[in-house]
Amino acid sequence: MSPRGWIPTKGMPGGSVDPVGAAAYRPPALRSPRNPDFVRKTVTLANGLQIGGDAFVVAAGPCAVETRELLLASAEAVAAAGAGMLRGGAFKPRTSPRSFQGLGEPGLALLTEASAATGLPIVTEVMDPRDVPVVATHASVLQIGSRNMQNFPLLREVGRQARPVLLKRGAAATIEELLAAADYILQEGNENVILCERGVRGFDPQTRYLLDLCAVPVLRQRTPLPIFVDPSHGTGDASLVAPMAKAALAAGADGLLIEVHAAPELALCDGKQALRPADFAELATELRRLAPLYGKRWSRVPREVSWRTGPSAPGSAVREGGDGNGRGLGRSSPGPFDDEVMAP
Amino acid sequence: MSPRGWIPTKGMPGGSVDPVGAAAYRPPALRSPRNPDFVRKTVTLANGLQIGGDAFVVAAGPCAVETRELLLASAEAVAAAGAGMLRGGAFKPRTSPRSFQGLGEPGLALLTEASAATGLPIVTEVMDPRDVPVVATHASVLQIGSRNMQNFPLLREVGRQARPVLLKRGAAATIEELLAAADYILQEGNENVILCERGVRGFDPQTRYLLDLCAVPVLRQRTPLPIFVDPSHGTGDASLVAPMAKAALAAGADGLLIEVHAAPELALCDGKQALRPADFAELATELRRLAPLYGKRWSRVPREVSWRTGPSAPGSAVREGGDGNGRGLGRSSPGPFDDEVMAP
Amino acid sequence: MSPRGWIPTKGMPGGSVDPVGAAAYRPPALRSPRNPDFVRKTVTLANGLQIGGDAFVVAAGPCAVETRELLLASAEAVAAAGAGMLRGGAFKPRTSPRSFQGLGEPGLALLTEASAATGLPIVTEVMDPRDVPVVATHASVLQIGSRNMQNFPLLREVGRQARPVLLKRGAAATIEELLAAADYILQEGNENVILCERGVRGFDPQTRYLLDLCAVPVLRQRTPLPIFVDPSHGTGDASLVAPMAKAALAAGADGLLIEVHAAPELALCDGKQALRPADFAELATELRRLAPLYGKRWSRVPREVSWRTGPSAPGSAVREGGDGNGRGLGRSSPGPFDDEVMAP
Amino acid sequence: MSPRGWIPTKGMPGGSVDPVGAAAYRPPALRSPRNPDFVRKTVTLANGLQIGGDAFVVAAGPCAVETRELLLASAEAVAAAGAGMLRGGAFKPRTSPRSFQGLGEPGLALLTEASAATGLPIVTEVMDPRDVPVVATHASVLQIGSRNMQNFPLLREVGRQARPVLLKRGAAATIEELLAAADYILQEGNENVILCERGVRGFDPQTRYLLDLCAVPVLRQRTPLPIFVDPSHGTGDASLVAPMAKAALAAGADGLLIEVHAAPELALCDGKQALRPADFAELATELRRLAPLYGKRWSRVPREVSWRTGPSAPGSAVREGGDGNGRGLGRSSPGPFDDEVMAP
Repeated sequence: MSPRGWIPTKGMPGGSVDPVGAAAYRPPALRSPRNPDFVRKTVTLANGLQIGGDAFVVAAGPCAVETRELLLASAEAVAAAGAGMLRGGAFKPRTSPRSFQGLGEPGLALLTEASAATGLPIVTEVMDPRDVPVVATHASVLQIGSRNMQNFPLLREVGRQARPVLLKRGAAATIEELLAAADYILQEGNENVILCERGVRGFDPQTRYLLDLCAVPVLRQRTPLPIFVDPSHGTGDASLVAPMAKAALAAGADGLLIEVHAAPELALCDGKQALRPADFAELATELRRLAPLYGKRWSRVPREVSWRTGPSAPGSAVREGGDGNGRGLGRSSPGPFDDEVMAP
Repeated sequence: MSPRGWIPTKGMPGGSVDPVGAAAYRPPALRSPRNPDFVRKTVTLANGLQIGGDAFVVAAGPCAVETRELLLASAEAVAAAGAGMLRGGAFKPRTSPRSFQGLGEPGLALLTEASAATGLPIVTEVMDPRDVPVVATHASVLQIGSRNMQNFPLLREVGRQARPVLLKRGAAATIEELLAAADYILQEGNENVILCERGVRGFDPQTRYLLDLCAVPVLRQRTPLPIFVDPSHGTGDASLVAPMAKAALAAGADGLLIEVHAAPELALCDGKQALRPADFAELATELRRLAPLYGKRWSRVPREVSWRTGPSAPGSAVREGGDGNGRGLGRSSPGPFDDEVMAP
Repeated sequence: MSPRGWIPTKGMPGGSVDPVGAAAYRPPALRSPRNPDFVRKTVTLANGLQIGGDAFVVAAGPCAVETRELLLASAEAVAAAGAGMLRGGAFKPRTSPRSFQGLGEPGLALLTEASAATGLPIVTEVMDPRDVPVVATHASVLQIGSRNMQNFPLLREVGRQARPVLLKRGAAATIEELLAAADYILQEGNENVILCERGVRGFDPQTRYLLDLCAVPVLRQRTPLPIFVDPSHGTGDASLVAPMAKAALAAGADGLLIEVHAAPELALCDGKQALRPADFAELATELRRLAPLYGKRWSRVPREVSWRTGPSAPGSAVREGGDGNGRGLGRSSPGPFDDEVMAP
Repeated sequence: MSPRGWIPTKGMPGGSVDPVGAAAYRPPALRSPRNPDFVRKTVTLANGLQIGGDAFVVAAGPCAVETRELLLASAEAVAAAGAGMLRGGAFKPRTSPRSFQGLGEPGLALLTEASAATGLPIVTEVMDPRDVPVVATHASVLQIGSRNMQNFPLLREVGRQARPVLLKRGAAATIEELLAAADYILQEGNENVILCERGVRGFDPQTRYLLDLCAVPVLRQRTPLPIFVDPSHGTGDASLVAPMAKAALAAGADGLLIEVHAAPELALCDGKQALRPADFAELATELRRLAPLYGKRWSRVPREVSWRTGPSAPGSAVREGGDGNGRGLGRSSPGPFDDEVMAP
């Protein structure tokens, strides 16, 4: 199946109103996974990492890139625990202009260094359409944050890049609106979109947001795109991350975005929700044990596999000998992990 | 630990304002499961069924008691699939007075008959304080519905019964408010309270309610009471029940309330969210396989164990030779189930 | 028009499912005020006070009846300021059982005394169906609180009384659900229902609830029943009551429920949102000046008109010489008010 | 008072974390209008139009610029009815990429033509930081839409322009977050910010959004900036615009944004919520009659006053002989309006 198949033509006849409506981007054949034509979309990164399908990927790392030392420490920790990607923000969307705004381009350089050191591909946020090219030279996956889910110029810009995009659901966005936002990226020709539930606004001050895990099965019925969950922002509380991460896996998620910080008490941003490396390692171990019960294989590419930096079209990405989840190469160089089912 | 220990005195000195505030019902020693004094509360029904602790219980059945035939068919189906309790409403809180309102007392009699036939204890809703005594003669667990979470005269009335109470969270209730509502029951001396998350109001019409699974780990940090989840009302859509049921288990729930109807297309109430017996059996099989991965034992009492009807103080309930999850007796009369881990 | 005309038959043929659906209580002819058959419902109390139509009524008083002295002081203050009814709770629905629960029946007796002293009819909450008869002997209007909007046995009970009912919208209730709840009362034969918007759950901790003033024009399009607004509970903050009271009038409300306390700092309940008498007097003066601009007449019955206590069917209520808004008798004994337009 | 006074220094000492928190942009002296130092901010446009203070301004026009004929017809209609500004979108943020996206720059040229024809200043949305300069050459007020309230690069860009900014509240934004977003603009040196409530996400499908009118008095207590309300987007229904517009005035708003379309049935965007010219004229007449009751003067500059196009710093704007609300010049050339109180 060409994913392009479920993306109708970009222009509208006559150039004005949509004659088909927002539902058009999901032809009937693809609306249900029970349909024989339905194929789940997989996204493959330049280093061979598979996202979607039967892969389960955990992207972990600090909320923000702060210092070289802290970033490398966090990156090594999450790599050692089995994360498949490194997350971390160089450009930070902060509620107040008086809060730490991220390091900007120097932060991107640090991420590239951490990626080289650990072999982990980078997922990092881009907020400004003018920054998209520079972020795309450093990142393997371009993240669109919750506040920018309906920043349409930005969506169009990342839609023109040869980089997968992780699109976070807005805190007040319906599922329909999330799918329509993804459509902005798809329409520009970028078919490698990963959706991410990260909590919606709720009325209970008990948690920072209300993590809508039901979005996972709903999205699975509505779109072939891979679906991630961010239990860190979705709860705002490190003590709630592990149960919600496990619940996300059970609900059918294809991966997680988890904040891990080498020293949460020093974090300039969202330290309250960051896991310590040891807690993350414990959670990762549990998730790896559980994933096969839900038909998922833990997906990562060990650091022995050289990661190709620089822009390369995701469409041309090759798996470089592995099977996309580290098994081909992993067998010959397994490192500390065995991604088979562990006895409970 | 006497659960009474965490219930302060009922009256206030002077009889007027609360000098301590709503937080008083959770003395510091019990606020965190990490505290060495913390003990999770278990509720044991008259037939020996254990709820809470390491037990995992599924209560299943139709939304409403409609006809004798449909009820018995549903009850037999859920018993055969391994449910631990039979749910079903004789008094139905319906948005409109023009909708089916339930059979009332004749419905209770049918529930008792279904209980006798299957050995399953009954959990059924009571809406009117004047009906509490009659419902208590038929039900093993008194259910307080979402709309009545803050019906304080009703809470007080069930607080005076020798019957466990399943208290559903209101659709706009905070966790604080749910705990304060439970306190109305506890204050009357009834310590056998089971809390139930069943979805809060959300803004997305995609689902009927927004199932707040994060309430499970939050409640686990705040109270020793057992915590159930109702994925049927929480989603309003049968196709979403299975993933959310599994996610609830993974999030740490002690049990589930699931709507199962022998013929959903004939249901007078909420047929859209009811599972068919075969789908429920498949889900139950999955849950039984998964429960041990989360430290839970599938809890039910096979029908060979006679179920004692009539009023009996839950406090005096005995486990009658079994270990509360059917293993003691289950071994000698296992029926079709083996509650050990199944190979994945 | 007989209001009974828009209430279909009570039972359903066959006694089971609703063949017409929740929309049935609004026959097409009444759906729009533009329809020539449409007539706005007015409710007339035993003392002649008119509610609805072109009348604008302010019910004011303390959240809870606390002491005789405080209640009488508050009652005299709101009467002097021109309130048309006295509000005050004897039975209080409190989130926690450890908070002040109201004085109960002795509180009702104090309300009756305050009513006799001021000539103001009483609107007070009833929470328990078993208390309805006793509350109805003291109250002119039975209030159903927000938490009980879907307490259906209670709705049915007040539907059988010869007393108007003020029905508050639940904090998570849609307009449809509010109308369906009102239908429970109407179905029992009580046509004198006043709806009240009092704030829904919002996500912003800035205010206690989110006052949905748009409910007023929406309800005006959907039902002929009078519509009140409670800006005190709706905001939870005395400093926001005046602007929201004025906005409610401008949005088309038929009346207000305002908390006024002789000494808010001593209040056992919700003191933060209570106006002081002087602030209420100022607001009342403003509202009386503004009401005619919105086609409303300030409605109250001066204390010279004896108020008949005891049960009397609202249907048999007479206006006793006045024109329902105090003008007939008011002319001969105007007191300090002139309910004509004041020059701006 | 220099508004700059309440904007702390832009950078943080040490360049990292905010030592004071989000509250810093409101020094204690300005937190309450009761403080003697408190002065409400007024924004004066290049044509002399005053916004804020005792002025009440209505910006009206179509949701989107569609054709020259429709735009001019709408503009003439709203000018004739007394609107103070012309609203209309050339760049439209649409949920789906398959909907009409606006005319872009040609739309801006049409707005400039409509402005020249009517004398009305233009308020129009800018979505892309790269478009800010071109939009600023056409618009008198730069609008930041709800979806972009936390598009921080865009906020910074408009903060660097010599043009007032109308900042709409996000559908899930708290008041705190709205103020912090405004701070991004203020920090760049642009002190001419107008806040706009336009509805937040609610759970009731009855209206498109839930218009939070209480945001008006809350904001008045928190900030000296002028506050507008958009009852068109806030309700999504033309039949609800008039009552909510009047309620907004009563709640203390400084102005309104109202969608008016010469032919709503032909609108490519949001026709359901657009008023017809005749309905707008009726509403405008009512609002002009009511405004003085709330201490407001209807503010507009008649077309006889030449409107200076092209970039000009708002700070250097002159009132050109009028008193900012059209009275100085209006007296000599009043047009059809008399902005004094009309008899009710």
